[in-house]
Amino acid sequence: MAKLTKREENYSQWYNELVTKADLAENSDVRGCMVIKPYGYSIWEKMQAALDKMFKDTGHSNAYFPLFIPKSYLSKEADHVEGFAKECAVVTHYRLKNSEDGKGVVVDEDAKLEEELIVRPTSETIIWNSYRNWIQSYRDLPILLNQWANVVRWEMRTRLFLRTAEFLWQEGHTAHATKEEAIEEAERMLGVYAKFAEEFMAMPVLQGVKSENERFAGAIETYCIEALMQDGKALQAGTSHFLGQNFAKAFDVKYATKEGGQEFVWATSWGVSTRLMGALIMSHSDDFGLVLPPKLAPIHVVIVPIYKGQEQLDQISEYANGLREELLSNGLSVKYDDRDTHKPGFKFAEYEMKGVPVRIAIGPKDMEKGTVEVARRDTLEKAYVAQGDVLEHVMGLMDAIQNNIYNKALQFRKENTVEVDDYDAFKEVIDQKGGFVLAHWDGTPETEELIKQETKATIRLIPIDGKDEPGVCIRTGKPSHRKVVFAKAY
Amino acid sequence: MAKLTKREENYSQWYNELVTKADLAENSDVRGCMVIKPYGYSIWEKMQAALDKMFKDTGHSNAYFPLFIPKSYLSKEADHVEGFAKECAVVTHYRLKNSEDGKGVVVDEDAKLEEELIVRPTSETIIWNSYRNWIQSYRDLPILLNQWANVVRWEMRTRLFLRTAEFLWQEGHTAHATKEEAIEEAERMLGVYAKFAEEFMAMPVLQGVKSENERFAGAIETYCIEALMQDGKALQAGTSHFLGQNFAKAFDVKYATKEGGQEFVWATSWGVSTRLMGALIMSHSDDFGLVLPPKLAPIHVVIVPIYKGQEQLDQISEYANGLREELLSNGLSVKYDDRDTHKPGFKFAEYEMKGVPVRIAIGPKDMEKGTVEVARRDTLEKAYVAQGDVLEHVMGLMDAIQNNIYNKALQFRKENTVEVDDYDAFKEVIDQKGGFVLAHWDGTPETEELIKQETKATIRLIPIDGKDEPGVCIRTGKPSHRKVVFAKAY
Repeated sequence: MAKLTKREENYSQWYNELVTKADLAENSDVRGCMVIKPYGYSIWEKMQAALDKMFKDTGHSNAYFPLFIPKSYLSKEADHVEGFAKECAVVTHYRLKNSEDGKGVVVDEDAKLEEELIVRPTSETIIWNSYRNWIQSYRDLPILLNQWANVVRWEMRTRLFLRTAEFLWQEGHTAHATKEEAIEEAERMLGVYAKFAEEFMAMPVLQGVKSENERFAGAIETYCIEALMQDGKALQAGTSHFLGQNFAKAFDVKYATKEGGQEFVWATSWGVSTRLMGALIMSHSDDFGLVLPPKLAPIHVVIVPIYKGQEQLDQISEYANGLREELLSNGLSVKYDDRDTHKPGFKFAEYEMKGVPVRIAIGPKDMEKGTVEVARRDTLEKAYVAQGDVLEHVMGLMDAIQNNIYNKALQFRKENTVEVDDYDAFKEVIDQKGGFVLAHWDGTPETEELIKQETKATIRLIPIDGKDEPGVCIRTGKPSHRKVVFAKAY
Repeated sequence: MAKLTKREENYSQWYNELVTKADLAENSDVRGCMVIKPYGYSIWEKMQAALDKMFKDTGHSNAYFPLFIPKSYLSKEADHVEGFAKECAVVTHYRLKNSEDGKGVVVDEDAKLEEELIVRPTSETIIWNSYRNWIQSYRDLPILLNQWANVVRWEMRTRLFLRTAEFLWQEGHTAHATKEEAIEEAERMLGVYAKFAEEFMAMPVLQGVKSENERFAGAIETYCIEALMQDGKALQAGTSHFLGQNFAKAFDVKYATKEGGQEFVWATSWGVSTRLMGALIMSHSDDFGLVLPPKLAPIHVVIVPIYKGQEQLDQISEYANGLREELLSNGLSVKYDDRDTHKPGFKFAEYEMKGVPVRIAIGPKDMEKGTVEVARRDTLEKAYVAQGDVLEHVMGLMDAIQNNIYNKALQFRKENTVEVDDYDAFKEVIDQKGGFVLAHWDGTPETEELIKQETKATIRLIPIDGKDEPGVCIRTGKPSHRKVVFAKAY
């Protein structure tokens, strides 16, 4: 297995190679659309399972709405159409026919749709069109739904997981009687995302709200979590939107209040996508390949026998199969790789590439001495462990690795977060070092745009727990009462 | 809650009303596309979970391939394109723009795709195009993948769950070194489907192969399971295809054999869809609503308090919440419905409509006597059960209901399966009584088509375990060596 390009040589190439070599995903022949390979998909399934449980524990149910959205729906919310009409897949016909030269099929012009259908880039419009019929009275509220689905945004420059034309995601869409309740919901789901990122992905995140420029098209407020990648660029890992009454007004969704009045319904939406796979990869992996948190690893432990001849293999296999059973019964996912087509060194490199948290190697000398060699993926450290202690040692490593990679990422973020008070320093940090940069900003979209043009940095978020601190905008010198977080971003 | 139309009055209307009133699904404004509502989706999730486990237990992994298929791919397999090109959604453009009158958005003609994309009606072509790069040697085989996805077939006449333009399904796609192995896989997955239908859905199925007319477009052999609905029509509930080397040849997928030669790869595909929801509904439900097998019921037990005043409610609630905890800790899903906005009678009707297997009602007299009223949905029987025996009684009902509705459906199928030896009897049964009709057929597509034209009945399957039995075709009098199963079908 050829080695990866090193991160410091070419981070972007390192990422692309890693995604391919770890068998996570690949580009398809369909422009911008990826194939998620079984190993990559099994990580996504673990993410889905954890998130789905968190959504259900907070009172949400899953449902499913149509893939297609009538073109006219998109136009009903003014900001929304501006944000999404520019990059969408448009279905115009519903039939093919044999071509006249007999060499293939062509679009049947007789089968043209009266109104074009858009492949959903997000589902607010089609869902709020349904909610109009579902909601009559305050008794019908709240509606707390989530959908697991594919969506399409016609991106021009795509990268596996990070930006693809089609991607998989979940989108929550909730309807509430009051503004306060909707805001509480949007904040609650931001908290769910932050908890998932930190506890499962071992990825520390900042929580905050977006500036107007970066807000979701149609939202009053966009809450977000942002993580820092190893190249010093930020990655938006999840968003939760307070949509006010915008979609209720666009789709005429009113409810009868307890007091007998009529009010428009309040809304939220929130989503995370297969982009999280990119975030996971870039948070922890190294020049040897993927590093996975045990809580999301499809295989926790791989056991590799080191042997010459069938007799040695039989002896090792007897022990290894017993060990495998023992680990399995403690809830771990274990693979015993006794393939005779590959050498141990090849296997070691393969499982390092795939980020399996713990590797156990067993040779004839281990069998004599009653030990095994245990290697942990995160630190690449090896230890010889008495066979009687393996279970306890491995179980301990699961927690240790989960915690270690979180702490390492947190330490990295600390080392790459700075506060600056003048624009020269700002430009230098953004240009040279990257990372999160806290700085004063005058609060206007124009200044944000100016800074973006001049430095490529954008406001990633306005911290939720930021302290009030009077100062002046680094770019315009106008007054500011709070620092915001800038970074270059994926 | 208004009552359902009775099955015997208008079966089709009964079905449509039931799907809506039980809150399973509804038609969307997008022609032919349904909204699967939370209660319906939660049943689908239970189906998915059971099937997914069975697929994994038989060695399969999940993956994800693009939604879009380049138009030219469809043409590569001659039969396949004939079967699927006639009813597909075609993406021709990738951008909208503001209309000149400023009143909405229109297709941007500058954003026309060079090659149109088809929204997948099934994924053989896009997947085998990937497999070409994945398979070099016999060491890369078998590939055992499954995909959970949405697909689109532009049906003109749609019915909720049974036939919709967009539906949800799983599609397995496997690649093998030998013909025998591929046939074994296709048969194994048919067995998985049959087991799922009978053990989880409590729906007896016949297993067999399709005649040439009914075969999947591109298959050498289509295996299927067929169930009998209460109106005497058959429903194809799952298919598993032996594809031979058709797709390998169309996409040039060869492998190096152990002996050093080059061979085309052998293929299978197999799928079940949200159509199973329709089958589930029509197998067991009655004029009061849905009847669900406990293994797929989102709520196993509902507890309804019957009270006057807060004091009675408090007393009942204390007991009911304890009972709920006890049932929950035994793995049941339990709802305590103490809403004060609806009367018990309304709630009873609602949970009957929704097919909750067991209802427990508790009134002040029950509290005095230390009993509860337990009603089972399948038979509508009620029993008074001592509070100390409720857990055991309810756990027993779960098995009893699962078995009873299976046996009832099996009995119905027996009573509605007949063998006939002449065409007049055949026509009479098909026309008057419906059901499965075993009859001799001369084995030609022409005769099958003739019978279909004359009676609307099609060959549902050629039984796998059918006995050889010489006879003459009911329509042509030509020799036949085995009876096949005819029915009108959904």
